[in-house]
Amino acid sequence: MTKNKWIDVTAPLVNGMVVWTNDIKVQIERRVSMDRGDLVNNSTISMGAHTGTHMDAPLHFIAKGKSIDQVPFDAIIGPTRVIEIKDKVSIKADDLKPYNIKRGERILFKTRNSPASWQNKNFAEDFVFITKGAAQLLAYTKVALVGVDYLSVGSPVDPEKGMKDVHEILLGAEIWLIEGLNLTDVKPGNYNLICLPLKLMNAEGSPVRAVLQRIP
Amino acid sequence: MTKNKWIDVTAPLVNGMVVWTNDIKVQIERRVSMDRGDLVNNSTISMGAHTGTHMDAPLHFIAKGKSIDQVPFDAIIGPTRVIEIKDKVSIKADDLKPYNIKRGERILFKTRNSPASWQNKNFAEDFVFITKGAAQLLAYTKVALVGVDYLSVGSPVDPEKGMKDVHEILLGAEIWLIEGLNLTDVKPGNYNLICLPLKLMNAEGSPVRAVLQRIP
Repeated sequence: MTKNKWIDVTAPLVNGMVVWTNDIKVQIERRVSMDRGDLVNNSTISMGAHTGTHMDAPLHFIAKGKSIDQVPFDAIIGPTRVIEIKDKVSIKADDLKPYNIKRGERILFKTRNSPASWQNKNFAEDFVFITKGAAQLLAYTKVALVGVDYLSVGSPVDPEKGMKDVHEILLGAEIWLIEGLNLTDVKPGNYNLICLPLKLMNAEGSPVRAVLQRIP
Repeated sequence: MTKNKWIDVTAPLVNGMVVWTNDIKVQIERRVSMDRGDLVNNSTISMGAHTGTHMDAPLHFIAKGKSIDQVPFDAIIGPTRVIEIKDKVSIKADDLKPYNIKRGERILFKTRNSPASWQNKNFAEDFVFITKGAAQLLAYTKVALVGVDYLSVGSPVDPEKGMKDVHEILLGAEIWLIEGLNLTDVKPGNYNLICLPLKLMNAEGSPVRAVLQRIP
């Protein structure tokens, strides 16, 4: 590990934050409160497993797929590449070809979603997504991990093609997914990644904390 | 970072797991389910912020203390020492003196709590705790982080002395706390630690994922 500082690429978890259209709202409540005369502060948390910056395990879309507690630490701790995609609509196979992406790599895509979409309090349906072709290229290459900077790898505009196919291609190839990164403060290049989900047994996803450290 | 494997020292989060006596129960529910004919699996999570392996921020016991989103990454990522305490009742100042603990260190205590207490489905009130004297020594030394292997640094057997004082001494010195580690598979010695809480804004604690990597 170098001595460079860790950059937090995690969306803050707060009541009222944007969530996927039909997901439950985030509720963080101080059940016990010193302001109300209690001895301590003690909060409860309630949210969907795919809230804010989170991971999808294969089980999200693959009936017998691995669950989030089975993620290998090798997939989520180690060198990663942040690739900037300037296309304002989608991440296409042709966009990826110049980068010579290799088997086992951890790849994070920075798009116009960071920061624009995260500043929007409402769900932004028109975020930059991964196309079916790009998903197939990443699956064929057998990368270890893919990260995107809004709430899904696929687009909800065309649910069958955008959501189902793209998730199935990536998760079916056992590529672990980080969704909802905020890469606003991160330049394209090489980093050390740490992304740790909660140890939610037999769950198909989890909120995570994710940090990057520039590799000089 | 060495190439040694990461050891998971996090308690599994499951329905029915042991929680602090008066805390809310863990609920992980598959709200949307492929077994029931839905397109995907999608879970909701509900739990106390101090469930399983978790961190306490100063705000847990200190009215104007820092919240968990303010934890510096330097406190929770980096070299750490696992110290084994053989005392079956408590961690005392005298137990610590041979270890020459230094300012800024990250210290994890392994006791008989790992694994005995975690195997008990009911809350184990008689866990090995940190005494007021040991807390004062750690605060005076100004360590960065202290981790223990059951649900609290202090004992509930004597709530005022055991819980309030020990938390106030440690959190008042802005020592960040990990509680609920499972150190069963960890020998005493030197490790790299990564312990990441969720980014729960203005909360006094958070469940975490914590891993160790042996330093040769």
